[in-house]
Amino acid sequence: MINDIEIIKTEATKINEVDFDNLAFGSVFSDHMLECDFKDGKWHAPKVVPYHPITLDPSAKIFHYGQSVFEGMKAYKDAKGDVYLFRPLENFKRLNISSKRLAIPELPESYFMDGLKALLEVDKAWIPQQEGSSLYIRPFVFASGNGFHASPANAYKFVICTAPSGAYFSGKVKVLIEQTYSRSANGGVGFAKAGGNYAGQFYPTQLAVEKGYQQVIWTDDTNHEFIEEAGAMNIFIRINDTLITGPTSDRILDGITRKSIIDIANAEGIPVEVRKISVHEVVEAAKNGTLKEMFGAGTAAVISPISGFGYKDSDYDLPELDNTYANRLKKIITDIQTNKSEDPFGWRYKL
Amino acid sequence: MINDIEIIKTEATKINEVDFDNLAFGSVFSDHMLECDFKDGKWHAPKVVPYHPITLDPSAKIFHYGQSVFEGMKAYKDAKGDVYLFRPLENFKRLNISSKRLAIPELPESYFMDGLKALLEVDKAWIPQQEGSSLYIRPFVFASGNGFHASPANAYKFVICTAPSGAYFSGKVKVLIEQTYSRSANGGVGFAKAGGNYAGQFYPTQLAVEKGYQQVIWTDDTNHEFIEEAGAMNIFIRINDTLITGPTSDRILDGITRKSIIDIANAEGIPVEVRKISVHEVVEAAKNGTLKEMFGAGTAAVISPISGFGYKDSDYDLPELDNTYANRLKKIITDIQTNKSEDPFGWRYKL
Repeated sequence: MINDIEIIKTEATKINEVDFDNLAFGSVFSDHMLECDFKDGKWHAPKVVPYHPITLDPSAKIFHYGQSVFEGMKAYKDAKGDVYLFRPLENFKRLNISSKRLAIPELPESYFMDGLKALLEVDKAWIPQQEGSSLYIRPFVFASGNGFHASPANAYKFVICTAPSGAYFSGKVKVLIEQTYSRSANGGVGFAKAGGNYAGQFYPTQLAVEKGYQQVIWTDDTNHEFIEEAGAMNIFIRINDTLITGPTSDRILDGITRKSIIDIANAEGIPVEVRKISVHEVVEAAKNGTLKEMFGAGTAAVISPISGFGYKDSDYDLPELDNTYANRLKKIITDIQTNKSEDPFGWRYKL
Repeated sequence: MINDIEIIKTEATKINEVDFDNLAFGSVFSDHMLECDFKDGKWHAPKVVPYHPITLDPSAKIFHYGQSVFEGMKAYKDAKGDVYLFRPLENFKRLNISSKRLAIPELPESYFMDGLKALLEVDKAWIPQQEGSSLYIRPFVFASGNGFHASPANAYKFVICTAPSGAYFSGKVKVLIEQTYSRSANGGVGFAKAGGNYAGQFYPTQLAVEKGYQQVIWTDDTNHEFIEEAGAMNIFIRINDTLITGPTSDRILDGITRKSIIDIANAEGIPVEVRKISVHEVVEAAKNGTLKEMFGAGTAAVISPISGFGYKDSDYDLPELDNTYANRLKKIITDIQTNKSEDPFGWRYKL
């Protein structure tokens, strides 16, 4: 028992099979997982159990009706071996916001937080200490109840798995400003971390990759006139010395990295504007030389700089700057996350 | 082997546990299922196997990124015991159209059609002969490959399960014309039978149910100005003697029942218009008495008549007619499906 969470430990650790100096992103998994079931109208106490396959009836609604939501978090180990999370309650709250929109029962806070802490305690040795590496944490909830009727399931499973991981992207990415496909609808589920939002992005992204880009910049579905997200990340645009990002809405994810960056930029005296930003404004800024930087922001990649963009058969390169906001902000946020600096915002969460 | 499909039969049938005179919809499942795997870059030959649970790694992408598509079909047994499908190639084609949009590899036609025929041959005894009942067939494809990277999976599973089923809805439904939430985006995945499209409908439908309605009429996400779908069905509206349905688009499913109804109505001399229909027009028609009928159309319910609708805090009742298009069209289409009438369109597919 840790924090009243029942623990069933694995009989054979796999940790010696893992090369912690050469970690990919999210492809090797730690020895244990947290598992928690909703049935008979309520969530039942979570348990830490050995990492194991999940067995479902072919009629389980996850296979048919897409009821699934997830979160992405990271645990960091500092030089002393202490373990830190970054704003974990924000992930908990957002998971429930996503769940509500998908008609999935909301989780009690203690099941999420105590379960997470117990899991990390048991698999503490799996948290990498290497520069740039972390333990990627994937909480998710899905419909495990059965039946072909197109209605919410009567049973769900909440699981947390963890994966020691290296960096998500390597290097700058070239992006395509999307003019045909869309990520989300007004009044839809774009603000939720719903599985279906990601599946819908893959095909347009493949088309962009075939044209020589790595990611898509999503625009509004009405006229493709406003910049919304960058791949699966929020987006920031620097024009002259001002950092601009779109306002959150029912179409745009309320990213934790996004709002942390806004707070850091404000504290650093960087002018920040949270407002709608049109494709036209970005193209004009690229043409007249005032467009200095674009970058994606999200838990997996933290900050992912963009080298240039394509729009309607033209390509626009961004300048190579010596002192970028992207590098400066990334250093500040990751120093806070990894306990290398003070934490004036109270975001770090010591395990 | 049937049609070159390998068959592994169950050792103990469950058919004697089923009350075929009191079937719900999609909640008891036949003895066998078709299973087919995509790995190493290709689909491998399907097999008919005993109905059995599916076991997946917790990192399987179906749990995280919503890559899933499905179809709905029915098999009917006539008085002589002959078995018929209804336009099955249309379901096969649409499954691949859905898959393509979700970055899921498309299936070979023979794997779908020969697999389906072999499965129905093996479970022929599960096809109900009772009036109004049928064997509901659920082909689906989902991402079974592993990893937390937000990209298409490298492995997929195609499964067909079947469920002897009674009617989907009982009685008329009262619907709410949605003014806040939306089902799909321009440039999105609304035209695909993607799992995520359904999960996003559950919460708005729950809100409508709390207000005393049974279903939601979806409208465009820009201004909620045009009628798009009825719950998980296409919608038809009769004003005076003209039957109207919206044009298919990237937001609206190309329903097989929908297009069959259009063809039947044309053959019957019913004036049909396929065009955008505004909420305003429907409300005005309700007020001036020219709105005669509204009904949903889809495989599960075939035709589901609507008794009235709510719009912006007002309720509008539809008239009780003696001779409805809904009943007339439903009889024609189900008589074709169940081999009770001629099939001038060549839609029936004898097994």
